Amino acid sequence: MNVPQLICQKKNGEPLSREQIRFLVSNYVAGKIPDYQISALLMAIWFTGMTAAETTELTIAMAESGDVADLSAIEGVKADKHSTGGVADSTTLIVAPLVAACGCKVAKMSGRGLGHTGGTIDKLESIPGFSVDQSMSSFVQTVSDCGLSVIGQTADLAPADKLLYALRDVTCTVDSIPLIAASIMSKKLATGSDVIVLDVKTGNGAFMQDLPSAVCLAETMVKIGTAAGKKISALVTDMNQPLGSNVGNALEIREIIDVLNGKRSGDLKTVSFAIASQILITSGIASRIEHAHEKLENALTSGRALDCLARMIAAQSGNPGVVDQPELLPSAQLQIAVTAQTGGSIKFIDTARVGHCAAILGAGRKKKQDPIDPAVGICMEKRLGDQVVKGETLAVFHVNDEKHLRESMELFLKSIVIEENYADLPKLIYEVIGFDEKK
Amino acid sequence: MNVPQLICQKKNGEPLSREQIRFLVSNYVAGKIPDYQISALLMAIWFTGMTAAETTELTIAMAESGDVADLSAIEGVKADKHSTGGVADSTTLIVAPLVAACGCKVAKMSGRGLGHTGGTIDKLESIPGFSVDQSMSSFVQTVSDCGLSVIGQTADLAPADKLLYALRDVTCTVDSIPLIAASIMSKKLATGSDVIVLDVKTGNGAFMQDLPSAVCLAETMVKIGTAAGKKISALVTDMNQPLGSNVGNALEIREIIDVLNGKRSGDLKTVSFAIASQILITSGIASRIEHAHEKLENALTSGRALDCLARMIAAQSGNPGVVDQPELLPSAQLQIAVTAQTGGSIKFIDTARVGHCAAILGAGRKKKQDPIDPAVGICMEKRLGDQVVKGETLAVFHVNDEKHLRESMELFLKSIVIEENYADLPKLIYEVIGFDEKK
Repeated sequence: MNVPQLICQKKNGEPLSREQIRFLVSNYVAGKIPDYQISALLMAIWFTGMTAAETTELTIAMAESGDVADLSAIEGVKADKHSTGGVADSTTLIVAPLVAACGCKVAKMSGRGLGHTGGTIDKLESIPGFSVDQSMSSFVQTVSDCGLSVIGQTADLAPADKLLYALRDVTCTVDSIPLIAASIMSKKLATGSDVIVLDVKTGNGAFMQDLPSAVCLAETMVKIGTAAGKKISALVTDMNQPLGSNVGNALEIREIIDVLNGKRSGDLKTVSFAIASQILITSGIASRIEHAHEKLENALTSGRALDCLARMIAAQSGNPGVVDQPELLPSAQLQIAVTAQTGGSIKFIDTARVGHCAAILGAGRKKKQDPIDPAVGICMEKRLGDQVVKGETLAVFHVNDEKHLRESMELFLKSIVIEENYADLPKLIYEVIGFDEKK
Repeated sequence: MNVPQLICQKKNGEPLSREQIRFLVSNYVAGKIPDYQISALLMAIWFTGMTAAETTELTIAMAESGDVADLSAIEGVKADKHSTGGVADSTTLIVAPLVAACGCKVAKMSGRGLGHTGGTIDKLESIPGFSVDQSMSSFVQTVSDCGLSVIGQTADLAPADKLLYALRDVTCTVDSIPLIAASIMSKKLATGSDVIVLDVKTGNGAFMQDLPSAVCLAETMVKIGTAAGKKISALVTDMNQPLGSNVGNALEIREIIDVLNGKRSGDLKTVSFAIASQILITSGIASRIEHAHEKLENALTSGRALDCLARMIAAQSGNPGVVDQPELLPSAQLQIAVTAQTGGSIKFIDTARVGHCAAILGAGRKKKQDPIDPAVGICMEKRLGDQVVKGETLAVFHVNDEKHLRESMELFLKSIVIEENYADLPKLIYEVIGFDEKK
């Protein structure tokens, strides 16, 4: 096969065949096709799109470019979830213990945070002693023993995705729905679970800012998963404000524990329950939403979900005492309130900017290599639609290094729009793209 | 400046500024921007096009990426011509002596043939002793002394074009009118002439197969040249059959001599006169077409044009005797007639294929490094619309190596469609996009 001819075919809007896609992916990973041809192809894909069949073939070729995790030693249904990323979006560490307590096995490989979004791995690492680097055999053992395990992605999981993503990042071809879908789903397929539930975020703190794009991405990924033989469903949920109240790694672990021990409800719990319900239904553990909710409430109030989390922490060398004594988590030296400059109703929150404010304090990174401070971050005290009076606390900043505090606070105040009239509140869950056994 | 942001800007259809284009070209030539970013940018340009201003800025940045020929030592008007390439298209070596004999100076750097098209440099090298490799100072001297000189392109002429063309070739981004226009015009600007006349070919033997694309390319190049301060005009001419009768290097030199010594007329002479007239008018040497034609006929019948050619050949170490004794040119061992398999009217000639037939015999090359045989080629005896009877000679093949003769002859017969009814003849000159002093 001739690479320029394949680029030409794609450029002219003709779909690539399974064999052509496999040829391109395998030879690119093998270093036999240069970056400059693949980047031209990616740009042609950006303009012409990909058919459902092409996207599926690309995903499978990428998934099979490296190791595919063998979870066969784990008994029962193996479930995985994925969020497209947001601010204060710590559903994974609520959903996984909840469904594990209901008999589902969650074997999850997660990523680190970048830009304004947090990463599950960074959050877990704020727990004293916790290790995200586990061998495949201890990963499988922890899932079998505790019902869940969350580890960092191994180097050889979907190497084609790593190469392609790095190339897309520097050639402005990230924002293509088929390429995003293939990137996410290739890792999900390589991770080897039977059941996959996706949480596609939409809004000003999400990668997919507008709802139609988010729905399209969700549908595309459900189609890929179904075609690849997975039981899969997706939710499209709001990211027009931080999902939880806390933005920052240890701060988010505190909030997770508060949800799991029943002290906190709100949007984070609502979305977590929605995702967990889909997992139970898609897995066949629950037949209806009401049934799923009942099981989940029971897992929560009985303390079984929190216990699953504690056992996983212990199995991965962390201090499980944090679930009862959150003060064992790192905490920042200073707590500084940021107050409203005017009274009214919270009309708009620039969510990505709030994420950046936390990153400026040290909670996140600009570049992959940047160090982070697990203790720092922002605890929001107000949500969209809330009434505030001038001087009232909007958020508390948890700070260790005051160097960039002013910059972060100023940016934060620019991120919150307070107006006299009431705001229309966004929906929390826009759409559930259900698992359909017949597909 | 950030390269991914510039790619993004172009991808989203926003024009790049002069500074942005200069940054991209200069840093690419300096090796500071990798191929994979430029190939993505080129593909984005393929899809979104370029404004007239962008195309001009790109052309100028490419022209200035290397040496710009200094022709200031040559007195009088310096003119250049360019053809987008075709089969039996040897107008350069007719036009240049003609206008030189009328007082214009032609300092031309030419390319070699590739694929089905011939190259002026290859044709000249079929003249015994002729050297296309000349220092800049002897080039300038020859133009001053003889009125014309044709040499190979120096290595440092528009190096950005060399890099970009090589990248476009392997990433399927060749067929973009602004990129083609910038590529051609960057070399024309770097060559330093004041007057430029372009011959854009259209038809089945041309790069621009359809007329609207050819007209668009011609107009784009005229705009670039005008914006860059050149006096420029363009013709759009037919390439639905070989322009001359002879396809092959020494064979074409024979035909050139026959036109210049008055023995031959026909389409090759007609197009050459049209181009030469434009040069004289654009240069201000003639005021009207009739005036230009008169001067050119005089240059031809007086023998002055042929004498200019002979003097250039002598100045570049070639044997000037060829103009009087064409038998001094290399000739092939075998002449084999290819005859009509049926009678009727010549309705269609697949011109690119005829070029390939000559290349198969050894007159052209598939890859840049391939050797060529100057003596071989095809002399067409029929043109579109001509009547033939079964068994009548269509063309004579001039052959040294019989190895690929059968393949070439079979392909040739497939290239000529003979039908009973008369064919509509294509126009020879479709459009003249004139030089406008006011622009």
